[in-house]
Amino acid sequence: MNNIYSKGAILLLSGPSGCGKSSLLKEVYKVIDNYYFSISTTTRAPRVGEKDGVDYYFVSKEEFTQDIENGNFLEWAEVHGNYYGTSLKPINQALLDSKLVIFDIDVQGFEQVIDRLSAITTTVFITTPSIEELEKRLYNRATDSKEVIEKRISNAKLEIEYIDKYDYFIVNDNLEIASDQLVSVAKSSLIKASLYNKSEIISNWN
Amino acid sequence: MNNIYSKGAILLLSGPSGCGKSSLLKEVYKVIDNYYFSISTTTRAPRVGEKDGVDYYFVSKEEFTQDIENGNFLEWAEVHGNYYGTSLKPINQALLDSKLVIFDIDVQGFEQVIDRLSAITTTVFITTPSIEELEKRLYNRATDSKEVIEKRISNAKLEIEYIDKYDYFIVNDNLEIASDQLVSVAKSSLIKASLYNKSEIISNWN
Repeated sequence: MNNIYSKGAILLLSGPSGCGKSSLLKEVYKVIDNYYFSISTTTRAPRVGEKDGVDYYFVSKEEFTQDIENGNFLEWAEVHGNYYGTSLKPINQALLDSKLVIFDIDVQGFEQVIDRLSAITTTVFITTPSIEELEKRLYNRATDSKEVIEKRISNAKLEIEYIDKYDYFIVNDNLEIASDQLVSVAKSSLIKASLYNKSEIISNWN
Repeated sequence: MNNIYSKGAILLLSGPSGCGKSSLLKEVYKVIDNYYFSISTTTRAPRVGEKDGVDYYFVSKEEFTQDIENGNFLEWAEVHGNYYGTSLKPINQALLDSKLVIFDIDVQGFEQVIDRLSAITTTVFITTPSIEELEKRLYNRATDSKEVIEKRISNAKLEIEYIDKYDYFIVNDNLEIASDQLVSVAKSSLIKASLYNKSEIISNWN
């Protein structure tokens, strides 16, 4: 991408587990190499196979609450006694490096982000064509128990009510079409954020 | 483009004469073939080489004022005794045909369009990197007199003040980069407009 994107942009994705966000993002990364996928910080213990700095930043409860006090989180929440949050520092660094910062975030978390960074944030809700299709995909990928799948389905039904709050929604029916759409939106998010940094351009016009 | 774009979208372009809109649009047409470029209606006489239905729809003053009375214009203005306007009928037909409707419109005209059709409209301001570059291009293309070029330059300086009102701005420094950006924004405009027609999708989720 070229250097008019002087301060980067934020692409905030929501959508039910199983809608295909990871597959779509792989296609985005092929086109936009200057990106940073936001990694959450948590106080919960790593599960088998999870790596620090890849799946999460794993920290102690003391460290986390200290960071809250110091205002180091863009957003955070307590879920079942564990803390989850997004540290500001890597986000700020990525934006300074003109990167596209990508969040995969639930509908509740997203409002905290856009409240603070709306001028450079583009939001996208991704869905499957129907709830039946989502159910089918979750059973086919066979990574979750029946109970977890049922929980995901009922969450998805709640989340779809929020799509009015998003700038875009993409129906992931065909991977090629949907990823082309997400790439277009991702590029547009960088172009849009550049409007926020337009003073340099306007100075060439006077 | 696929059929989720059930009602089309409007892409509204502004920018000084000489910024390269036509060249950029040629690249858009290669990717999005289902488009309609809006043609203005005017009461002024055709100039040499101008064709009815290509450059303008040429009509009589009586026809035009009758159309104003009948509410047939999306926007219209009187300039130096001649009327110029955009007829609603071809726009509505193009939107029903799920087309991307493209306007090349000045900063004054654009407000009338977005007032009426904001939900499905995306606006883009296109510039050269500097006023000097614009001047150079206008002199190089050698289609205008010195007086006309000076008028275009002073108009451009006034128009740049409006860029805050636009969703995007694109600096046409490198044709390949700028046309790729405009293609991304054009595709995004169709995706965004589909959000306006989301009821069909939501019905599959309940």
